[in-house]
Amino acid sequence: MDASVNELFDQLRSGDRVALGKAITLMESTRLHDRASAKHLLDRCIPIGGKSYRLGVTGIPGVGKSTLIDVLGMELIGRGHKVAVLAIDPSSTSSGGSILGDKTRMEKLAQNDAAFIRPTATGGNLGGVARRTRETIALCEAAGYDRILIETVGVGQSELEVDQMTDMNLLLMISGAGDELQGIKRGIMEAADIVAITKTSSQDADRTKIAQRDLLNAIHFLPTRAHGRHPQVLLTDALTGAGIVELTDHLEDLFTSEKTSGAMDSKRRDQDLHWLQKAVETGLMDRFNQDAGAMQALEAARNAVRSGIKSPFAAAEDVLDAI
Amino acid sequence: MDASVNELFDQLRSGDRVALGKAITLMESTRLHDRASAKHLLDRCIPIGGKSYRLGVTGIPGVGKSTLIDVLGMELIGRGHKVAVLAIDPSSTSSGGSILGDKTRMEKLAQNDAAFIRPTATGGNLGGVARRTRETIALCEAAGYDRILIETVGVGQSELEVDQMTDMNLLLMISGAGDELQGIKRGIMEAADIVAITKTSSQDADRTKIAQRDLLNAIHFLPTRAHGRHPQVLLTDALTGAGIVELTDHLEDLFTSEKTSGAMDSKRRDQDLHWLQKAVETGLMDRFNQDAGAMQALEAARNAVRSGIKSPFAAAEDVLDAI
Repeated sequence: MDASVNELFDQLRSGDRVALGKAITLMESTRLHDRASAKHLLDRCIPIGGKSYRLGVTGIPGVGKSTLIDVLGMELIGRGHKVAVLAIDPSSTSSGGSILGDKTRMEKLAQNDAAFIRPTATGGNLGGVARRTRETIALCEAAGYDRILIETVGVGQSELEVDQMTDMNLLLMISGAGDELQGIKRGIMEAADIVAITKTSSQDADRTKIAQRDLLNAIHFLPTRAHGRHPQVLLTDALTGAGIVELTDHLEDLFTSEKTSGAMDSKRRDQDLHWLQKAVETGLMDRFNQDAGAMQALEAARNAVRSGIKSPFAAAEDVLDAI
Repeated sequence: MDASVNELFDQLRSGDRVALGKAITLMESTRLHDRASAKHLLDRCIPIGGKSYRLGVTGIPGVGKSTLIDVLGMELIGRGHKVAVLAIDPSSTSSGGSILGDKTRMEKLAQNDAAFIRPTATGGNLGGVARRTRETIALCEAAGYDRILIETVGVGQSELEVDQMTDMNLLLMISGAGDELQGIKRGIMEAADIVAITKTSSQDADRTKIAQRDLLNAIHFLPTRAHGRHPQVLLTDALTGAGIVELTDHLEDLFTSEKTSGAMDSKRRDQDLHWLQKAVETGLMDRFNQDAGAMQALEAARNAVRSGIKSPFAAAEDVLDAI
């Protein structure tokens, strides 16, 4: 066991934010020695984790995610919690560290000692994001953060992956015609446990009411989430603070009810087994994709399928027989 | 090459329905010799196929799928087409042959020489359904069927798989409160290219209009399909025949426009490459799942994850290292 890892773990446990940042960087590193150290660190963090509430926050660009998270986070801190914000931006390819943008976006949280903000760059590899995000959660929990907010941009695949690591999802929408919803990817709306309309103070009150009613109608057509409730549609405004207390109350109620019923633990266990299965499948495919002979056979199969001379299933058998 | 396979192929090409039934049974067989024969047969059918229009038809039990397909099929036959109906019932586990139920359900089609009805039993194996359905389409096309209707029950995963082998999807709904839509699985509604409200003659006209408007509103909140159009919501009644001509016209227009623009061919090529990839992945996982050592390592990993001592990703690495 690495002595410096044990030291880092102790600092982490004491709530040292610099240590937490270092731990995440270590975990994101691709260097062989760092990976071994990260594994040791995680092996110590995982068993003591799991005590936070994990909330996904999504919505299209412009909906006001950062501003809402800023005030929601401050409200949670006011209630005695420690808040970690993990922002997943699939368009970003830099590997962590550049949190200046987020510090600007979340002014109040960035200056508060009970908050920790960290972007997760995806580098285009979604499996990698899932892993880094899941393991960052574990590190944050070990550092005492008990409210984890995971922000995604609501237009990509990542939200559906994030749904597999959050307890609840908050979908943010702008009041208005509804046309903007078309930018929301399939399944995002179905994955929402709560919907909040943002920026209500800058909108006509009637228009906001119509948007709320339209959304409730649309939601009525969707299947319910596992807990059997259709999401409520709340009205919020980060500038005036309107609706933030109600939103926080509603979120905390939902979390507590899921926690008390045992549904949260059972969902997390399923999520972890889901990621285990996914990671094994991805790992097998990676090995396959790194095999030159397999790639040659697959390319031949693709050509046979593309030119319409083989059924895709027959072509797949050829590939499997070749390796 | 098997002489009897060549004979079967010739009979199939001449439009012999008994031969088509035999060919499908051969393709569904798990006997080693049959599988080799089926492979030969498909190798001859696949290159000459692809000339049909493929329509998915889905909706919850009770919506009137069979009755609607019966009259829609007859309308298509009246326009000079040959119609094959492939019914996928995930609750059925018998392996083909038992089409009495479908004959009763589709009275007119069952007695028409230009129609062919065949259920695909899933036996619980979705990958298997996809393969059997995709290859049955190829056999039907070789037998001259140019309109393929694939019926699914709208509550399972199979519709999303079927979406990967149809050109268009028709979603059937009953007019009414909208509550019944909650039985529709995530993504089914997003996969619809046309929505038809059924049984309008048995409903109050006002109520039907409201249902149509509500559905159009709900659809407005969904992303558009690849062709960029939101589905229309048509009113139909299989008993009186109301709306069937309009539905058929609309379907044929959509198909023809997709065919003419080249979008249909390009979608099918993508679908086939999707199935190739899926079949390779499934095949790799099957091999993994049949390996006793791998299963032992996976079980150990599951236990470590379940008891919360390992991250699912770290546990997956242990599994991959063990094999």
